[in-house]
Amino acid sequence: MATVKHKILILSGKGGVGKSTFSAQLAFALAAMDFQVGLLDIDICGPSIPKMLGLEGQEIHQSNLGWSPVYVESNLGVMSIGFMLPNPDDAVIWRGPRKNGIIKQFLKDVYWGELDYLIVDAPPGTSDEHISIVQFLQATGIDGAIIVTTPQQVSLIDVRKEVSFCKKVGLEVLGVVENMSGLCQPVSDLKFLRSTESGEQTDVTEWVMKYMRENAPEMLDVIAYSEVFDSSGGGAAKMCSDMGVPFLGKVPLDPRLCKAAEEGRSCFDDNKCGLSATALKRIIDKLVANGMV
Amino acid sequence: MATVKHKILILSGKGGVGKSTFSAQLAFALAAMDFQVGLLDIDICGPSIPKMLGLEGQEIHQSNLGWSPVYVESNLGVMSIGFMLPNPDDAVIWRGPRKNGIIKQFLKDVYWGELDYLIVDAPPGTSDEHISIVQFLQATGIDGAIIVTTPQQVSLIDVRKEVSFCKKVGLEVLGVVENMSGLCQPVSDLKFLRSTESGEQTDVTEWVMKYMRENAPEMLDVIAYSEVFDSSGGGAAKMCSDMGVPFLGKVPLDPRLCKAAEEGRSCFDDNKCGLSATALKRIIDKLVANGMV
Repeated sequence: MATVKHKILILSGKGGVGKSTFSAQLAFALAAMDFQVGLLDIDICGPSIPKMLGLEGQEIHQSNLGWSPVYVESNLGVMSIGFMLPNPDDAVIWRGPRKNGIIKQFLKDVYWGELDYLIVDAPPGTSDEHISIVQFLQATGIDGAIIVTTPQQVSLIDVRKEVSFCKKVGLEVLGVVENMSGLCQPVSDLKFLRSTESGEQTDVTEWVMKYMRENAPEMLDVIAYSEVFDSSGGGAAKMCSDMGVPFLGKVPLDPRLCKAAEEGRSCFDDNKCGLSATALKRIIDKLVANGMV
Repeated sequence: MATVKHKILILSGKGGVGKSTFSAQLAFALAAMDFQVGLLDIDICGPSIPKMLGLEGQEIHQSNLGWSPVYVESNLGVMSIGFMLPNPDDAVIWRGPRKNGIIKQFLKDVYWGELDYLIVDAPPGTSDEHISIVQFLQATGIDGAIIVTTPQQVSLIDVRKEVSFCKKVGLEVLGVVENMSGLCQPVSDLKFLRSTESGEQTDVTEWVMKYMRENAPEMLDVIAYSEVFDSSGGGAAKMCSDMGVPFLGKVPLDPRLCKAAEEGRSCFDDNKCGLSATALKRIIDKLVANGMV
């Protein structure tokens, strides 16, 4: 770990808030800036990183320097337990001590080489994996943690716990990202349904598109926005000001970003994820500019 | 546990798929059918159940029979570590053995009384909490597990692991629920944005509503549908047929259901959650009719 300049933990209180998607896109973005990047997945029971980097089915190789990460590009190496399962459907039914053991190996036995950034994607919670990674990394210094949340109270409650965890173990909170901050989608990408008298729904997309083109063509140029998750409690921005940690910005729930993540692609490579990619890039640029990552 | 007729585990591979929302609404629905229901939250680091049942800030009381659950109604009792934290922001920084200890206490030291159903809401994964709850409950019999997922591949990959876990520990899979299966929202509930030349977005909802009323009034009666999470891989239905487990149905991502969960309300009480409540009720009725719960 002595050859790693910056070490950043990506945390969330609750699962399913897009933490791994953020980790993956942060890694893609830093690699595109020509930094040397390592991405370490310490979610042992539910590793999503191989899929999100387009590396499903890859395997780890052993060299005389140690285990080799799997490389997306020559400057983006990835390590995950997902690369070590003989069958991708296999459950990893491990209690804490065994999970701690493999995390230690990922840090000690993997030959990461010279890295500008090591990004560590953690599972949700504040338990074995979190206590262990902080203990293992603190000896050589951690820059801090980025916490990902949705605007919902149920997620923010857990983020408050995550911030308390960071304070307790002496880990700096680099900032909080509000993800899935409303669904943004061009009206022309939507589908439309109509309820029939029997309560069933029929697809009327074709009819609606024709109807709009003929009667209200300007509708096709606007973006539909749905709040999805109630943010009437003030969302992450208010929580950050309450708890005295930096708020990094909002990223909308964008089906095109979800699709990029599912396909293991960078959302910055084409213009397909305009709405979310712009928001993500702004957050990452802010982190880099502040020297925070 | 001898006084509990049915014991059902609610599992998911990934977090944030709406597992706790499903558990909470299942408990509300069974209680509304006049069953005696207990809801046990074994997510120790991120307990969402107190909020989702409208019980935030409540405390557990001790009687000479043991700990008393917190009651929503006389036939719906709830237990969660969330009721035991002096400060709701406190992180529960516990390794596995301590988590296993509290789960054992929830089963042994809580006076549940006579129950038709004990619903156990588990955290994501296949680790300490899952191994322990199955070990503790198997002595007195578990009916089985309901697994909640989203249509995304990243979630389905982890569900496959969860099904493998169930097979390995001899737990019957009662079925799989596909949640967040597309966003359904009346067009009249949407907001609209337009991108300006500088790349900023301005809210044009008022203009769009007026424009629709004047030019395309029938738009206001249709339901907008966005797939949100890519389900081109076949979603949960295909995974179920691949793995030989029952598929229970789809529940759309409905902002009104999210709001009911945030406010700790049953989605069945008013007609506000029409789209999701109908889908949920159909799944629960199917479970009850089959004698599966």
